[in-house]
Amino acid sequence: MTMNCNPIRNALSVLLLSLSVVCLTNAQRVTPIDLLIKGGTVVTMDGEFRVIENGFIAIRGARIVAVGDAAALRQANYQARQTIDATGKAVMPGLVNAHTHLPMTLYRGLADDLDLQEWLTKYIFPAEAKNTTREFTIVGTELGLVELIRGGTTTYADMYYFEDAIAEVTKHAGVRGVLGETLIDFPAPDHKKWEDAVSYTEKFLRRWKNDPLIVPALAPHAAYTVSTEHLKQVAALAEKHDAPILTHIAEAPTETVTINERYQARPVEYLERIGFLSSRVTGAHMVHVNDADMLTLKQRDVGIAHCPQSNMKLSSGTAPVPQMLAQNLRLGLGTDGAASNNDLSMWEEMDTASKLHKLVTMKPTVVTAREALMMATLGGARALHLEKEIGSLEAGKRADVIVVNLDAVHQVPRYNLISHLVYATKATDVNDTIVNGKVLMRARRLLTLDEATIKARARKFQTQVSQSLR
Amino acid sequence: MTMNCNPIRNALSVLLLSLSVVCLTNAQRVTPIDLLIKGGTVVTMDGEFRVIENGFIAIRGARIVAVGDAAALRQANYQARQTIDATGKAVMPGLVNAHTHLPMTLYRGLADDLDLQEWLTKYIFPAEAKNTTREFTIVGTELGLVELIRGGTTTYADMYYFEDAIAEVTKHAGVRGVLGETLIDFPAPDHKKWEDAVSYTEKFLRRWKNDPLIVPALAPHAAYTVSTEHLKQVAALAEKHDAPILTHIAEAPTETVTINERYQARPVEYLERIGFLSSRVTGAHMVHVNDADMLTLKQRDVGIAHCPQSNMKLSSGTAPVPQMLAQNLRLGLGTDGAASNNDLSMWEEMDTASKLHKLVTMKPTVVTAREALMMATLGGARALHLEKEIGSLEAGKRADVIVVNLDAVHQVPRYNLISHLVYATKATDVNDTIVNGKVLMRARRLLTLDEATIKARARKFQTQVSQSLR
Repeated sequence: MTMNCNPIRNALSVLLLSLSVVCLTNAQRVTPIDLLIKGGTVVTMDGEFRVIENGFIAIRGARIVAVGDAAALRQANYQARQTIDATGKAVMPGLVNAHTHLPMTLYRGLADDLDLQEWLTKYIFPAEAKNTTREFTIVGTELGLVELIRGGTTTYADMYYFEDAIAEVTKHAGVRGVLGETLIDFPAPDHKKWEDAVSYTEKFLRRWKNDPLIVPALAPHAAYTVSTEHLKQVAALAEKHDAPILTHIAEAPTETVTINERYQARPVEYLERIGFLSSRVTGAHMVHVNDADMLTLKQRDVGIAHCPQSNMKLSSGTAPVPQMLAQNLRLGLGTDGAASNNDLSMWEEMDTASKLHKLVTMKPTVVTAREALMMATLGGARALHLEKEIGSLEAGKRADVIVVNLDAVHQVPRYNLISHLVYATKATDVNDTIVNGKVLMRARRLLTLDEATIKARARKFQTQVSQSLR
Repeated sequence: MTMNCNPIRNALSVLLLSLSVVCLTNAQRVTPIDLLIKGGTVVTMDGEFRVIENGFIAIRGARIVAVGDAAALRQANYQARQTIDATGKAVMPGLVNAHTHLPMTLYRGLADDLDLQEWLTKYIFPAEAKNTTREFTIVGTELGLVELIRGGTTTYADMYYFEDAIAEVTKHAGVRGVLGETLIDFPAPDHKKWEDAVSYTEKFLRRWKNDPLIVPALAPHAAYTVSTEHLKQVAALAEKHDAPILTHIAEAPTETVTINERYQARPVEYLERIGFLSSRVTGAHMVHVNDADMLTLKQRDVGIAHCPQSNMKLSSGTAPVPQMLAQNLRLGLGTDGAASNNDLSMWEEMDTASKLHKLVTMKPTVVTAREALMMATLGGARALHLEKEIGSLEAGKRADVIVVNLDAVHQVPRYNLISHLVYATKATDVNDTIVNGKVLMRARRLLTLDEATIKARARKFQTQVSQSLR
């Protein structure tokens, strides 16, 4: 009996062809990306608060293109230009420092334990008058940026002078900044007259508009240092340039007294009355606010930067954070400047925020680790009205990601990752810092800034500042 | 003319001889020591609060033999078996953690953000009942010791169970410990009956008496968990064995209520009435004390361990620290256990203590950096009634010394060293840790404990504890 092999041969040929097609399809399905972070526990801080064991983040250009688990990673078949193995580590959104004065890092520890007036008038103001130049601002910013990157802060909101120079340095370092040029009714280090400062600010706003990293902003110092007329002008300029406003609101008890004497209103009440409050505004501190004020902040969609360590050190008081959280206000955390903290660690702010409100309310259940972590990430993004772009690890958002070591002795053992991130993890545990898809620190090595040179330059200014106050 | 060279030759011979004598004398003047730490800025914490630039510490055996400046060092002509160059670094007394529960490091982050009763009854007590064995205690102690040595803590006061095993591990690690076996009117992990615990404790006290590192102590848990009769028995035992007593006093508001219901007195008032308070006693927390209580504490020479971070996290309240400082009470700082903190960093306790009381009193001048540093060093020694032996760098005292890096980015620039040690320095900045003259960590490398093995053993207990609570 002879067998007709043709049908089998034909069938085999078809099978082979199908296989080739499948292989070809799979080959075509390789997805090129720029950066793959895999193997770690991904703390997304997304709407569902997803935590993905052995998860991954795929990044193309400046944006996250996918977040998922090991199965999704296998299916996606990425071809990455660079891969970071985060096995045993946490992968989370970069921290958002919603209020600081970065160049003041050069005044870290200049004077402490003093009454506010003495601290300001005998040390900070004279030091600034004698030392705060454009060059000083650049070095102070660089020094602060090293500390931010090392500690996993990927976005910061700044209020200082020479903000155009700060923007240049920040962009060079690769960090995201909402940078507000300070406007104040007194001669400032960069401008002696209000009009000059306004003119500089408008130029600054135009220059940086639509920059992928820098959000230029207006920063009227406070309601007690800027006149009503000028505050209205700032609000109009913000509207004209479609720019955010950073300012101090209701920080010290003396502010409440001053504003009440001048305007017969509480700070928030006064700012609402003059039409200053809007979704463009982020107010730092917001310590002395009552229920009516919080309702106003909610209605006007104002962002809040809570600065627990600074508020403690300067005896400012305690912001009603549990109530702010309950009302889902736009609430982030800030370190304030290093002159009043004295560091830029957002990890300590989380830890302190959580502990502080437990003490003040005498309720150990308030400001949970999860809420503190939220304030330092998505909360900060919301406080800066940037939550569509940053603050959580989600496809489509900017790739601002940090990888955090979990192996330090102070992190062992580990029952709950979120608890450990808030109550046990330190700035020194951050391993990698990525902003806008670019790796700024890899395995604790800085890739965009020269730390040794920056420290040497900072020490020269230290000598100058010390001599200037003699 | 022939010259008679003999007089010259003779004169030269005499000169040579004199030179030899001088050299011999100098050679004889070489002072042999074991360890020389030189080149750093020595923060002595002595009675005059001396800070010596380019200073030195000479150590022979377990004790400091001299402290001084560069001129004194040249004159002394030491021949040291080992020298640590501390140039650019701070040299200071090792930190004293005046209250902790070291084995509970294995419960770090087990549960957070809960009401005290829920935290204790649903997590801590069940976990302890199911897991706290002698082996568990050993591993937890080792883990805690790694964190203490890494963070520059050289003496700690402990209250836990199986304290004899804790003493063995602590002595092996080379750390100084005031170690109190817990006595409580409930079945404990190591003893179900009071009598058994007392018998164990007496044996423990006898075994470790006069040890150069371990001070064995009695640790009645608290006035609300130990009967009046038993507290009196503890006081008598302490007298009999010449041993210190560690206990919790006036921690939570509920304690004040309970003691008042039972004894119609405040906690300190009650303890004074039953004759419990003396210079043998160190009380942790002392949150709910009034002026009369503080006067009693002063009169009875009682030590106090202030635990700011734990008191915040557990909503215990705020101890009246500025008043305690004003009255020069024996006041130290403690981290409490890692289950309620969640780390063992004395640097954070200093920072928090200083900031907390500025907030609570609304006076930024209270609890200065210097006072905080004092509480963490000589204050802690005084709280444990050990100020004649430790707490400051002075000739004759035990050589408990740490060398601290000052070059981290969060420490730059530096206007005031004391401010930086309190407000900017972190546990990770400690470079070398020396206890009783022995180097336990050199350039961040541990010399007496195997960190990797200890972490691995700790993680096994983590799995066990997690499963036991399911």
